[in-house]
Amino acid sequence: MIRAALSLFFAVLAVPAQAIEIQEVTSPGGITAWLVQDDSIPFVAVEFDFKGGASLDAPDKRGAINLMTATLEEGAGKRDSVAFAQAAEDLGARFSFDVSDDVLTVGMRALTQNRDETAALLAEALTQPRFDDAAVERVRAQVQAIIRSQETDPQAIAAKEMARQAWGDHPYATSINGTAESVAALSRQDLVAAKNRVLARDRVVVGAAGDITPEELGMLVDTVLGGLPEQGTAPLPEPADLQLTGGVTVIDWDSPQTVVSFAGPGLPIDDPDYFAAYVANHILGGGGFSSRLMTEIREKRGLTYGVGTGLATGLYGQTWQGGMSGSNATTGQAVDLIRQEWDRMAQGVSDAELADAKTYLTGAYPLRFDGNGAIAGILAGMQINGFPIDYVDTRNAKVEAVTAQDVQRVAGRLLKSDRLRFVLVGRPEGIAATDPALTEVLPVE
Amino acid sequence: MIRAALSLFFAVLAVPAQAIEIQEVTSPGGITAWLVQDDSIPFVAVEFDFKGGASLDAPDKRGAINLMTATLEEGAGKRDSVAFAQAAEDLGARFSFDVSDDVLTVGMRALTQNRDETAALLAEALTQPRFDDAAVERVRAQVQAIIRSQETDPQAIAAKEMARQAWGDHPYATSINGTAESVAALSRQDLVAAKNRVLARDRVVVGAAGDITPEELGMLVDTVLGGLPEQGTAPLPEPADLQLTGGVTVIDWDSPQTVVSFAGPGLPIDDPDYFAAYVANHILGGGGFSSRLMTEIREKRGLTYGVGTGLATGLYGQTWQGGMSGSNATTGQAVDLIRQEWDRMAQGVSDAELADAKTYLTGAYPLRFDGNGAIAGILAGMQINGFPIDYVDTRNAKVEAVTAQDVQRVAGRLLKSDRLRFVLVGRPEGIAATDPALTEVLPVE
Repeated sequence: MIRAALSLFFAVLAVPAQAIEIQEVTSPGGITAWLVQDDSIPFVAVEFDFKGGASLDAPDKRGAINLMTATLEEGAGKRDSVAFAQAAEDLGARFSFDVSDDVLTVGMRALTQNRDETAALLAEALTQPRFDDAAVERVRAQVQAIIRSQETDPQAIAAKEMARQAWGDHPYATSINGTAESVAALSRQDLVAAKNRVLARDRVVVGAAGDITPEELGMLVDTVLGGLPEQGTAPLPEPADLQLTGGVTVIDWDSPQTVVSFAGPGLPIDDPDYFAAYVANHILGGGGFSSRLMTEIREKRGLTYGVGTGLATGLYGQTWQGGMSGSNATTGQAVDLIRQEWDRMAQGVSDAELADAKTYLTGAYPLRFDGNGAIAGILAGMQINGFPIDYVDTRNAKVEAVTAQDVQRVAGRLLKSDRLRFVLVGRPEGIAATDPALTEVLPVE
Repeated sequence: MIRAALSLFFAVLAVPAQAIEIQEVTSPGGITAWLVQDDSIPFVAVEFDFKGGASLDAPDKRGAINLMTATLEEGAGKRDSVAFAQAAEDLGARFSFDVSDDVLTVGMRALTQNRDETAALLAEALTQPRFDDAAVERVRAQVQAIIRSQETDPQAIAAKEMARQAWGDHPYATSINGTAESVAALSRQDLVAAKNRVLARDRVVVGAAGDITPEELGMLVDTVLGGLPEQGTAPLPEPADLQLTGGVTVIDWDSPQTVVSFAGPGLPIDDPDYFAAYVANHILGGGGFSSRLMTEIREKRGLTYGVGTGLATGLYGQTWQGGMSGSNATTGQAVDLIRQEWDRMAQGVSDAELADAKTYLTGAYPLRFDGNGAIAGILAGMQINGFPIDYVDTRNAKVEAVTAQDVQRVAGRLLKSDRLRFVLVGRPEGIAATDPALTEVLPVE
């Protein structure tokens, strides 16, 4: 659930008042890339996004794509991890490798004068990663440390249980990190197989910004991606059916505070009601200090420092979710208020709420277009989400077009408190688990 | 010591191959600002840096400027913290408030269409902060949590002890956070006094980048700063005498690893030997995987995962410092190697080392100029350090001009292992404290 927020981020795109000119470039090898050309400083940022991400893990190899991604920068071809880092340093290059439920992201920043060599070095990492024993063991130890720390983090525990209830046998149901056992069992061959599942040309999109011409970008893209297989060995993930039911799960945790996580049905980013839901979410719990939930739970009653909601618009499954924490004694009261506000949205919103939400949602977004790196990421994210190339220019009009009726309709369709699942981690008072057995099924270390 | 790294960061400025045009603007009210004009997206980033920073704390009020800075965004004038945050949200504005040993930094990002209102809101925060009880208590609790966590962090423990030995009665000797006791004792009046010590027009510099004309910037600067007092109630800090002596301090800490911190004399950023030292540092321990220390300690012997050095060019005192961690059993060996390499620099460097260092140090810097926010910060940092306005264009030539003789000279002047103090936190083997009493003087919770 937490990781689905990546897609949410991509959805919150900015609309500069002055248009940013996006060019579509097709490389000689036939790969499409989107480009914002800008030669004010002599470097280019490029982002390569591979769709499917960690959801492409083989069922019995959970964590392999995450471990593989983190090891891509640990040496390639004839260079071990130190030689690879040194080569990047010498070129003034920066690479980044990251993975979420939906996307494996590879970023590069290259100086104009070293652009070709930088692209060749990145190609080496993607096509000839070494996965040396020492490097794999070091990265594996880091992943294991993260897994261990999440076992004692109440927010991570809540997210894990919510994902487990929500997503059945889809990879979304489990962590991209894998478990201590699955990660311990991963072999070098598993990492090679993981790479071949996800790093392929049939699932990649490219965004670029900076000092590069369309022709140069075409060649760069072919240099970086040309050596990858045409197709990944794993098909893209199937859509996941949301299996979450209304109710309350309590996980006993010795703390004066309870972490409250809640989620119900959401909608995909290409749903006709998406922008109505986006505005509704801002009013309900997305608007920082001005949202209804903040007003009721924090401002009027002081039951939490912060409460928020968001549309988790994952590519393969979606929720409308939220979270807060507060003292054990008032958890029951806070949950009641969340339920009330969840249902009250279907009664409609005021003109002032609607106008404030639109002002905020259309106003602040140019700030996100600050720099080549940010713009390259936005261009890749637009393609991952299937947006048209003129999305940046049309998005604000779509927000503006949302009416109070639209908000009421989407709220009536999706925001029903009896479909809202609460996962409480703590020793909450004034509320009981609807399925008490669950607290025993789930082992908590 | 750790905080002095801020100035270090400012010193490592980037040099775009294509010149960035910096304009000097004088506001109607007489304040100077540096500007890079760029109207490609409709917003401007402005950074206001107040020299002196947390070093301007009154002697018996340590932590006041830090607590004050963190509370500036918690409401001003008629707006409490929520209303202030909401007003910023409505404008699509972003503010940041931060402080280090040397500088209190205020950042703003404003949409072109809301620029005047955003400046007026920031002016309110700087001139009429409320310091409401509830907000102060919340921020105070956060600071206390940081202080507590540093008491059990071996790296923070090492840095604290090094600073204590280095800086006598200068504020550099103690943490900007203050102590649990000093922070607990701070009153609202102390915060008001702290503000008046540091937030004044006689010590501020301004950097700006984005969609704004020089005339508009002049008016914005006067809006934000015009209501501040002409002079701070505390004079700028005196230079601090480095009191560090060579030797070894051991702080007993139950861990299989020892944190190794080391420091000796450095030099200010306007020293004629500064660029020679900058190149020398890269070769010695600043160059990531390619440095001499990494080669000897990590590559050849595997005694650590990483070891590095840096010039801490604080405005009021400087060191040449470094750090690593490794197993207790090999700490003595690692310290011997650091001492050897510290002394070996005065024997000279090879042509290849010198050329590689220059390639790296001159090559990668355009990457830092990515975006209006980054550029505004660089422009302010240049002024804090007293650099000329053409520094960006001349910096690479200064790096290129460094000769092997220059490196050898500055190494002979500064890099002497018998002046290097080691602070070891752990249970190191093969090395003993030169002043065993010290381990008892310093309380470790």
